Amino acid sequence: MVIITISRQFGSGGRELGRKLAAALGFDYYDKEIIAAIAENMSMDVDYVGGALDNAGLPSFTPTLGNSFAFYTTSPQTSLMLEERKVLEEIAKKGKDCVIVGRNADIILREYNPISLFVCADMESRVRRCVANAPEGEDLTAKQLEKKIRQIDKSRTLSRSMLTSAKWGRADAYNLVVNTAGWDREKLTKAVAEYVRAYINRA
Amino acid sequence: MVIITISRQFGSGGRELGRKLAAALGFDYYDKEIIAAIAENMSMDVDYVGGALDNAGLPSFTPTLGNSFAFYTTSPQTSLMLEERKVLEEIAKKGKDCVIVGRNADIILREYNPISLFVCADMESRVRRCVANAPEGEDLTAKQLEKKIRQIDKSRTLSRSMLTSAKWGRADAYNLVVNTAGWDREKLTKAVAEYVRAYINRA
Repeated sequence: MVIITISRQFGSGGRELGRKLAAALGFDYYDKEIIAAIAENMSMDVDYVGGALDNAGLPSFTPTLGNSFAFYTTSPQTSLMLEERKVLEEIAKKGKDCVIVGRNADIILREYNPISLFVCADMESRVRRCVANAPEGEDLTAKQLEKKIRQIDKSRTLSRSMLTSAKWGRADAYNLVVNTAGWDREKLTKAVAEYVRAYINRA
Repeated sequence: MVIITISRQFGSGGRELGRKLAAALGFDYYDKEIIAAIAENMSMDVDYVGGALDNAGLPSFTPTLGNSFAFYTTSPQTSLMLEERKVLEEIAKKGKDCVIVGRNADIILREYNPISLFVCADMESRVRRCVANAPEGEDLTAKQLEKKIRQIDKSRTLSRSMLTSAKWGRADAYNLVVNTAGWDREKLTKAVAEYVRAYINRA
């Protein structure tokens, strides 16, 4: 079984690359399905679960109930993170080749020796991509988008720091780092799929 | 013309990958030739030039001649760095496809849009590689080797910081980051050469 995990800078096209890579390789694909499964298992709202997990590292998401000791009790985030681990473990235990986007799956599933990818791009390319992919009604300026991108990167750094000392975005924390700037999407998918096929037979 | 630059963690096998990559692609290859050219142009000893450039970021290599203003005069390192830039520019101006290992060539030659690679591996693999490649007579323990590796990484970080705010070893500072751990060397060369060929036709 081969598990490919994808960490990505917001706006770099990592999610799309993951989806296309799974299709090219004939692998299962997990992304928002993970949050949906956690929400269902916990009988919670899917948007709340997504927001709480994405901001698990931020102090404002650790409610203290009147006294500071509450910090050390089980917060909703802790329960969600445990459930997230359980859902990821269940995916791995299926024993089927798959691509998992986000969720620090490279760390949580490290004993399965995943191929860990980090997908990035320069800020200009990321802003341009966000403008092109903006949901209807969103009308942020380039400056506002850059601020949003930096905030999301920061929350990903923080949520990763709860699980490992190997910093998010450090080159040597992954098996392969791909910079998407300037690439045609189909050509990039093909190039990364080739590299992954070689990686599987690397020894 | 395509210039491939290779930054690498000490002991990761980046130099060897660069040499094999140049051979696989039929590109020119530059490595120690650069230091040799600088030494010849400056009529200086090649080992002194190598040491001074590799440690250009360290304060102990910026001699102050009796008063602190000397810091701002042209130090030997500054002259060497300017000569290094000149030698790299001359290589680029030849207009021939090439691989350049080290020397922060990705930064110095950025206007030539090089394909910048960062080559890394986990510490255990790097120590193992250093033991296997140790020059005759060197008999360092794994612990001593790890210390040496960290020192060299640090001096590379410092010498890069004199040229750019994009930190050495940050994933998004390169076009591709390759982790060599567990790879057969020939297979890795082939996989990276394929990726580079795709990159050249990426648009």
